Amino acid sequence: MAQQERAIRTRYTVLEAAAVVFASNGYEASTISEIMSLAGVTKGALYFHFSGKEALAHAVLQHAVIIKPENPVKMQAIVDLGLLLAYRLPREPLLQGAARLAADQNARPFFGGPWPQWRDVIANLLTEGRCQGEVFEHIDPLETANVLVGAFTGLQLVSTTVDRPDSLLLLASDLYRLVLPGIAVPGVLRVLSTDPDRAHHVFDVLGRPSWDLPVTFDSVPGASFPALSGQVDVSVPPSKR
Amino acid sequence: MAQQERAIRTRYTVLEAAAVVFASNGYEASTISEIMSLAGVTKGALYFHFSGKEALAHAVLQHAVIIKPENPVKMQAIVDLGLLLAYRLPREPLLQGAARLAADQNARPFFGGPWPQWRDVIANLLTEGRCQGEVFEHIDPLETANVLVGAFTGLQLVSTTVDRPDSLLLLASDLYRLVLPGIAVPGVLRVLSTDPDRAHHVFDVLGRPSWDLPVTFDSVPGASFPALSGQVDVSVPPSKR
Repeated sequence: MAQQERAIRTRYTVLEAAAVVFASNGYEASTISEIMSLAGVTKGALYFHFSGKEALAHAVLQHAVIIKPENPVKMQAIVDLGLLLAYRLPREPLLQGAARLAADQNARPFFGGPWPQWRDVIANLLTEGRCQGEVFEHIDPLETANVLVGAFTGLQLVSTTVDRPDSLLLLASDLYRLVLPGIAVPGVLRVLSTDPDRAHHVFDVLGRPSWDLPVTFDSVPGASFPALSGQVDVSVPPSKR
Repeated sequence: MAQQERAIRTRYTVLEAAAVVFASNGYEASTISEIMSLAGVTKGALYFHFSGKEALAHAVLQHAVIIKPENPVKMQAIVDLGLLLAYRLPREPLLQGAARLAADQNARPFFGGPWPQWRDVIANLLTEGRCQGEVFEHIDPLETANVLVGAFTGLQLVSTTVDRPDSLLLLASDLYRLVLPGIAVPGVLRVLSTDPDRAHHVFDVLGRPSWDLPVTFDSVPGASFPALSGQVDVSVPPSKR
């Protein structure tokens, strides 16, 4: 039992170290030895869990899951999805590694990796929103989702050149403020919140996904968090727009 | 004179070859010998014009200039700027090389290179548009310009995963259709065109920048074009939205 827990911890330590190295160097320039050294594990320990660099990249992408905030107002769920990701990205090495891999044109097998999944989640929410009369009839869910995913990806890149805390969160909030009048009908638009502060609130309610980790795990800084996953209803607070 | 012309041609051939190699491999994985081989020039000829890989990258970024379509309606000028770039990018190796360098996190000295310049151009147009009453009073020109530049960059990345001709142009058109209602007052919104076909029209009027090249230059496929630069007024055709 203790042995199993140690194995889980080691696996996660290696995974997070890989994410840090990928995020910093890109896929091609990252080496197993750098990941080993950062994780503080032996070659044997690393290869016990992962067959190599490609397997590590796959695992990093797999663990950077999308948390879907539930909300009866589907347009608010879409905004919360983006605000939450913008809030988490600078705080979670696994997400940073995944974002770098997704945008790293030298990492051909992973390039664009999570985009289709993310696009489909947003397209489905837009479709539901249209059925509920939240979204203009002329809005094409798939096209619009493609634009939102692409735009967010670009903001993430640009945000790394802006020396300001939570620059991505602020940019994402600006993006939603600009696009919502073109998507949501006026009656719904009025109750939507794009406030960056909302991200903290959504994060507090949803927490981070558990990745099957023991709650007591804290050998990696910032890796201790409640084991919470799935979908949680986040009610819409009064709009601050 | 003939010698000078030959030197200009060689310089441009090397520059375009460098852009192709940067666009395909990224900065780090690109080598001088690959650029030499693609350009079909000797080492001596290459180093006569450029001191090395970094100088080549700087030159690629420098030549990927923004063409500013003039228009009395400033919001249309902003849309045309993006549509024109989206039209040119898949057609011009120099722009592709520059786009890759700008988004290549391993090319630290160039990462984000042209973004501030582009942001300032858009921010100025938004400021002018606000003075003319085209743009909502609550719109912050610099913040909005940052979002537009970031979003476009992301669409360019995502478009390379979409196997459809002119996918970037279609995505850019979708982006503008979504954001304009959040920026432009209704009276102006009504006359703006985000039609992707508009890009061809704008391109025909503006042409490509001349880069000081002889008009007869045609040894690189697609490199023959009218020596035209500066700003040209592109009138707003009846909206097709």
